Amino acid sequence: MNSVITGTGSYIPPIIKSNVDFNEERFFSDKNEPFEAANEVIIEKFRAITGIAERRYASDDMLSSDIALIAAQKAIEDANINPEELDYIILAQNFGDIKKDTIQTDILPSLAARVKHLLKIKNPNCVAYDIIFGCPGWIQGVIQADTFIKAGIAKKCLVIGSETLSRVLDMHDRDSMIYSDGAGACIVEAKENGDSGILSHAALSHTYEEAHYLFLGKSNIPDTDPKIRYIKMHGRKIYEYSLNNVPQAMKTALDKSGISITDVKKIFIHQANEKMDEAIVKRFFRLYKMPTPEFVMPMSIRKLGNSSVATVPTLLDLVLKGKLENHQVNKGDVIILASVGAGMNINAIVYKY
Amino acid sequence: MNSVITGTGSYIPPIIKSNVDFNEERFFSDKNEPFEAANEVIIEKFRAITGIAERRYASDDMLSSDIALIAAQKAIEDANINPEELDYIILAQNFGDIKKDTIQTDILPSLAARVKHLLKIKNPNCVAYDIIFGCPGWIQGVIQADTFIKAGIAKKCLVIGSETLSRVLDMHDRDSMIYSDGAGACIVEAKENGDSGILSHAALSHTYEEAHYLFLGKSNIPDTDPKIRYIKMHGRKIYEYSLNNVPQAMKTALDKSGISITDVKKIFIHQANEKMDEAIVKRFFRLYKMPTPEFVMPMSIRKLGNSSVATVPTLLDLVLKGKLENHQVNKGDVIILASVGAGMNINAIVYKY
Repeated sequence: MNSVITGTGSYIPPIIKSNVDFNEERFFSDKNEPFEAANEVIIEKFRAITGIAERRYASDDMLSSDIALIAAQKAIEDANINPEELDYIILAQNFGDIKKDTIQTDILPSLAARVKHLLKIKNPNCVAYDIIFGCPGWIQGVIQADTFIKAGIAKKCLVIGSETLSRVLDMHDRDSMIYSDGAGACIVEAKENGDSGILSHAALSHTYEEAHYLFLGKSNIPDTDPKIRYIKMHGRKIYEYSLNNVPQAMKTALDKSGISITDVKKIFIHQANEKMDEAIVKRFFRLYKMPTPEFVMPMSIRKLGNSSVATVPTLLDLVLKGKLENHQVNKGDVIILASVGAGMNINAIVYKY
Repeated sequence: MNSVITGTGSYIPPIIKSNVDFNEERFFSDKNEPFEAANEVIIEKFRAITGIAERRYASDDMLSSDIALIAAQKAIEDANINPEELDYIILAQNFGDIKKDTIQTDILPSLAARVKHLLKIKNPNCVAYDIIFGCPGWIQGVIQADTFIKAGIAKKCLVIGSETLSRVLDMHDRDSMIYSDGAGACIVEAKENGDSGILSHAALSHTYEEAHYLFLGKSNIPDTDPKIRYIKMHGRKIYEYSLNNVPQAMKTALDKSGISITDVKKIFIHQANEKMDEAIVKRFFRLYKMPTPEFVMPMSIRKLGNSSVATVPTLLDLVLKGKLENHQVNKGDVIILASVGAGMNINAIVYKY
């Protein structure tokens, strides 16, 4: 029995925040000092490294569970299944529902329970839970769905990644320009499907030195209330950590699958930072003494930013629906899904269409 | 290959808050009206229903991940394993780390990652994640560990439940007297162990009507800030829901296991409410047309209150360590672990020692 992705869906929020919209912000360093460079210079440097020109924010009335619902509905429709047949709803998130202009994470009940409620599913045997695993949470949810299928306790799983990072931004921290809102989802089904489906996975947690590379911290503006905390990161450390560990994790997964590197058609990598993603994929191919093939890496970060758990399922959905130029996936193609994020966690799935 | 609990540990916080300590609180109804009855009467009625005489709060300097660490260390020691050999750390929680006198849930990174960091585990193949599944989260974590073992992706898992509900209490809500802090943990290992280990499980999520029976809401005191929210429940609805659904879920699990009801030695049920727990177990035995046997249900709620995800592993640890009068578990005994909570979720495990 194989674990097959039979449908995908995503929700790209309507509010476009472009780089120029940050021109009037007052940025401070993590030492609470203003930068000498003008905002235009800071923002252009940011764009050059991350690739991000604009990002999306959810509208004020929408919670993470609301946008998760829309992505889930699209995936269910795409898979053409009856939602009452779902055995599991697995939702990856890291900040729960946060109402606009409040600071409390609400995960009581879990966002998976909220989505199941909003989907009006009555079947009590559809078990709904959230997984907290940093940005790689959605891929880890797919790994768990695959495991449940292999262990014989599930046949149909809905796996969602949803995040509203716009609700936890310190507008005095230039790193906040990275973050975005979004939701993506897929249906994973047990199928007698020849050799297609999930072939292998790798998952890692590095916590000895790395646990707090991403963290909640107070605003960078001087004399701020330390009890109000925002998403923060040690960007340089994350960059080096990712380059040192993600390529090998992808190789571990690929080698387990028995697939040749030359058969890998696309790599869907967490949209964290364009330069970093390119360097990771380059190093991955270098592990096989190969140059990076053209068009192997679909990217959405320029227009969509980093929406944490939502980037990989959204990117996959865009490509499968033919919405990303120069990128398509055909029957028989092997792809890799890979992510890195808070924990620090890394994972990768090798999948054959 | 069987999934065997080879060690347990728990942490019971040192601060004892007894019922009389609530005498000076000002309680209001969820309609923000003061009660006519005196506090002594309210508190005595509370005690008569819930059984709770006192509960435990973590000291101000301890976070949920800190108390989780202590329970984890004890479980690791009890199982006599090298923590570097762990394949998974699964941590169940619902409010993350909340610093004393703040209102933000901190799950960046996951509490499992924090515990792994504090355990100084270097092995990156030890995957650490949190599960959000209401009070039944710890049992669900054990079900996931069992599934990983059955699917062949894990041999040793640490499963922790940890919560500091004292950080999310509305002191103007009499329901707040129920809640407590605590942490419990176990090691689940793959063993060729004859017929002992996890025999079966059941898991349910009822979300159609029930999703918001437990929720975050503003204080009961009039004219309070709605942006500051606390743990709240519709107690009567939860009571009825639990009585209507938990006994059948336990029966589903037991019938799957092939074990006779007469061979069930102990039922470790989520310590939510003494009267409710007794009624659930009575109904469970009634499904088999049997009276409730004496000493079948170890209880800790009178002294420890309801510490959410921590109650079942703590209770199990107390009994296995011979710390609960009239209760012991011997080789060959069959026990049931069962829980109910936010989602609403229910689960049960049938386990043979």
